[in-house]
Amino acid sequence: MNAPESNVIISKDINRSINEICSDIPFDKLFIITDNNTERCCLPLIEDNDYVKDAIQISLPAGEENKNLDNVVKIWSRLTISGAKRNSLIINLGGGVISDIGGFAASCFKRGVRFINIPTTLLSQVDASAGGKTGFNFAGYKNEIGTFTMPEKVIISTDFLKTLEHRDFISGYAEMIKHALISDENYLAKIISFDLNHINYPKLSALIEESIKIKQHIVEQDPYEKSIRKVLNFGHTIGHAIESYSLEQSGPLLHGEAVALGLIGELYLSCKMINFPVGKYETIRNYILSVYNNLDCTNIEDRLVDLMLHDKKNTAESINFTLLKDVGVFKIDNFCDRDEIVEALTQC
Amino acid sequence: MNAPESNVIISKDINRSINEICSDIPFDKLFIITDNNTERCCLPLIEDNDYVKDAIQISLPAGEENKNLDNVVKIWSRLTISGAKRNSLIINLGGGVISDIGGFAASCFKRGVRFINIPTTLLSQVDASAGGKTGFNFAGYKNEIGTFTMPEKVIISTDFLKTLEHRDFISGYAEMIKHALISDENYLAKIISFDLNHINYPKLSALIEESIKIKQHIVEQDPYEKSIRKVLNFGHTIGHAIESYSLEQSGPLLHGEAVALGLIGELYLSCKMINFPVGKYETIRNYILSVYNNLDCTNIEDRLVDLMLHDKKNTAESINFTLLKDVGVFKIDNFCDRDEIVEALTQC
Repeated sequence: MNAPESNVIISKDINRSINEICSDIPFDKLFIITDNNTERCCLPLIEDNDYVKDAIQISLPAGEENKNLDNVVKIWSRLTISGAKRNSLIINLGGGVISDIGGFAASCFKRGVRFINIPTTLLSQVDASAGGKTGFNFAGYKNEIGTFTMPEKVIISTDFLKTLEHRDFISGYAEMIKHALISDENYLAKIISFDLNHINYPKLSALIEESIKIKQHIVEQDPYEKSIRKVLNFGHTIGHAIESYSLEQSGPLLHGEAVALGLIGELYLSCKMINFPVGKYETIRNYILSVYNNLDCTNIEDRLVDLMLHDKKNTAESINFTLLKDVGVFKIDNFCDRDEIVEALTQC
Repeated sequence: MNAPESNVIISKDINRSINEICSDIPFDKLFIITDNNTERCCLPLIEDNDYVKDAIQISLPAGEENKNLDNVVKIWSRLTISGAKRNSLIINLGGGVISDIGGFAASCFKRGVRFINIPTTLLSQVDASAGGKTGFNFAGYKNEIGTFTMPEKVIISTDFLKTLEHRDFISGYAEMIKHALISDENYLAKIISFDLNHINYPKLSALIEESIKIKQHIVEQDPYEKSIRKVLNFGHTIGHAIESYSLEQSGPLLHGEAVALGLIGELYLSCKMINFPVGKYETIRNYILSVYNNLDCTNIEDRLVDLMLHDKKNTAESINFTLLKDVGVFKIDNFCDRDEIVEALTQC
């Protein structure tokens, strides 16, 4: 990691923030990486900026399926052809795919050029913006190749969220619910009471800031995910299985929609295994099911458990979960067997 | 950088060193990366070792031209297919190409698995073993893509050097002459008096150890090559140009053969520009020309200067050199013009 964690700017004026940051970082050439969605919806908000209008643009096709080696090579080739040097600077303008792949390409080009992330989805603002993970999918595995490299700066602006579809918005919001569950009651109360149908953007901005701080605080203590950083996977063991299963179906769920259901399942396991308070569990479950569609797990429990067992972090017939004793109090390395998990899935 | 610099083991018994290191590092699977030369000449020295004989071997074609993305992908694919995990361990057995490419592949696989380098040429023992540089050639540029990542351990054994051709041996020795020039008179005296035609291996082992310590000491002060690490490029600006030129000819020079001539040229510039003692210069020049063939630079001076100007670190019509005021006393950022460099080339 080559930069401290305090590198996130909650911006009220995106163009002013870009000016301030770019004038602070000496660079010879500026590059901006977009995908075809952010080129259309997000770049217009900043394209008149003096720095951005002189930047060399590298545009990639949008979508998780494009987070691959071909597009890493495309970035490297464009950087080489355009004469990028160690002293060049890259802006990654996009969701998690762009910050992951752009950050990876930057972290290896000439053994590392500096980059700034401007995340443009709620999910990437609260999740991908902190933590320094970069990478791309390889040989069928998510993020199989990557580095831990901190961006110089991350600029968060809710202006980019105004063009998001509601489903994309609540998908990102699931990670904020998770951050609340692993941190404290006060933040959880604010998250639950926030009106998702009439979004107050200044209020949202403050909630995002708090969410990022929660993640940063955990990442700082365990940057390479050797112990407590695993709590950031809360809800994700069951969530990933539901997401993978849904991808095989006609109407796949978004990442956060699956994680929201995973949070219910893993909170239920928390009640059963380490006495998470049942009353709180029910409140949270009701809230989640008021925002997200549930999944009828009947007859697919075994398939979902099989998907969890195939997750690279698990072996044999029990699965390792990080669970909660209470809001903000977690315990790693809880091994749950198939029957316990199947029971939890009936709650989702 | 994820490990301290004091990670080099000067081994008297390579198999015992492997046993000690592998028993100290918990891992699930062991991989060993070789090229077809080291597979034939070096692997036999360790293939009966209990750890090595259970290791999964990944063999690459030998040669600088194979330090490319295709072979990085080959390593990543083999690691994935063989079920490598974050907790796996990789041994890179070979010269600089294998430690560079194997180290790079390891540094990005699942965001970083640990690796051990066993350099098998003199050049890689004294040069590539310390410093944490990994990488591969891309789009016609050397080491265009890479990371700074320290190996867990580097094991140095002169046993591997016994099968080296004399030319390969003295090619590596040029980097030791360079290390002597940038460090101290005592070490330089030992380097000059060492009998290259009747090699005393225990003595050589001690000289290699000292050479590595010189490099480590510099790298520790400037791991990302922002200032004084540049002194490690002493002799290399002219050396690289001679190497590139010779590659276009029928009988190309080895890297160290070109660097040895580069040392003469840059020592000459040191005399002219910042008063390196002329008597010492003549002693060193005579020594180098007693070991290495000189190059007739008549009529090719302009071509060589053009090659230097095309080096990515230089612009315009002057070239930035790190020069010596005396043995062990250096000054960065000396700008020499075409005429001065042409004069220096007549000495090589």
